[in-house]
Amino acid sequence: MANRTIAVIGGTGDQGFGLVLRWAKAGERVVIGSRQQQKAEDAAKRANGILGGELVSGMENPKAAAAADIVVMSVPFAAHVDMIKSVHDSIQPDDIFIDVVVPLSTAVGGSASSALLVWEGSAAQQAARLLPPKTKLASAFHNVVAEALQRVEKKVDSDVIVCSDSQETRKAVMELATEIPGVRAIDGGRLENSRIVEQMTALLIGINIRYKVSDAGIRITGLP
Amino acid sequence: MANRTIAVIGGTGDQGFGLVLRWAKAGERVVIGSRQQQKAEDAAKRANGILGGELVSGMENPKAAAAADIVVMSVPFAAHVDMIKSVHDSIQPDDIFIDVVVPLSTAVGGSASSALLVWEGSAAQQAARLLPPKTKLASAFHNVVAEALQRVEKKVDSDVIVCSDSQETRKAVMELATEIPGVRAIDGGRLENSRIVEQMTALLIGINIRYKVSDAGIRITGLP
Repeated sequence: MANRTIAVIGGTGDQGFGLVLRWAKAGERVVIGSRQQQKAEDAAKRANGILGGELVSGMENPKAAAAADIVVMSVPFAAHVDMIKSVHDSIQPDDIFIDVVVPLSTAVGGSASSALLVWEGSAAQQAARLLPPKTKLASAFHNVVAEALQRVEKKVDSDVIVCSDSQETRKAVMELATEIPGVRAIDGGRLENSRIVEQMTALLIGINIRYKVSDAGIRITGLP
Repeated sequence: MANRTIAVIGGTGDQGFGLVLRWAKAGERVVIGSRQQQKAEDAAKRANGILGGELVSGMENPKAAAAADIVVMSVPFAAHVDMIKSVHDSIQPDDIFIDVVVPLSTAVGGSASSALLVWEGSAAQQAARLLPPKTKLASAFHNVVAEALQRVEKKVDSDVIVCSDSQETRKAVMELATEIPGVRAIDGGRLENSRIVEQMTALLIGINIRYKVSDAGIRITGLP
């Protein structure tokens, strides 16, 4: 992880903020991106307070993306297209772009336990259409819940399924996932499989509601 | 389970046969249904040989369904509509109908690690359209693999997610699931959630291929 920078676009939101905390704690250089500089800085201050050190900084989204080697998109689905467009010109050809977005029906006033069908097949495939062609695109972290990520002193009891059309990118993102204690990274295959992985989040949210819990996750069994 | 009978339509197939073995071993009265009487009887004989007793019988599909209180549909997706039609008139109003079918792309010559989008949303919702209106319909057992079910001396390391619009039916099928040692039943909510649960099977098959294993399953974490 020598000298690289991770920008979390939407790092002021619950899940993005959780990822920020985990990666900063693991020793990564992390930038929180927000539409507003001030909000980004406030969130960075809050993160540094929790972590006890000047580990996280805050910038406007395009600047955060420009400063980063790994850009993580963690915004509500309603903002997905706009946010990708806003950072588009800041993405360099060798950058890794990790899409965490789930097309929950909340984007159109529906329930968080159901999901929209995206024209391209998934939020990640929508990103693929919008990003510069050489972006190293993966989707991951859909099924680790904000609450679990933010409890930084506790292990996360969930696998992270990583999808990408590039095996090299998949591997890099799987390594990034395992920096979060308790997480096992699962090779989810091609980006198109993100269709299933994203929708699983809606199922897990429904399970949270029915079981009156807040951090249902998944583990794959039967692996070596 | 006093005096009830379970018919597994497609019980000659790998997954159906696995369910037959598990339920017969748990003390249920099980009938294997097949298009051909002889094939059903042969499979029943094979099951009884494995279990060491006259526990399972074999019948043509409509007769098997007529003899049963619980009808389990475990056929390839390509046969799904035809098989439901063939047992339709044998379903009584109080019968439970459990759909195990996954719309894998193999139905149209595609890959088992991808799935078709069904017009109604899922195989289970397709069944809902075709079955008599009062059928107690649930979907379940999509994500427990045939190999694991057939190794009757070993526990199954997987949860079974049960979806149904009737809470009572969901409960009954969850109880049936927990008769299989190692299985934990998960309340998957409404039948429409079967969209996600069915598609997860394609993801698990892809994981089996990538990890060179044969019985990847899932566990939900974070539950009480």
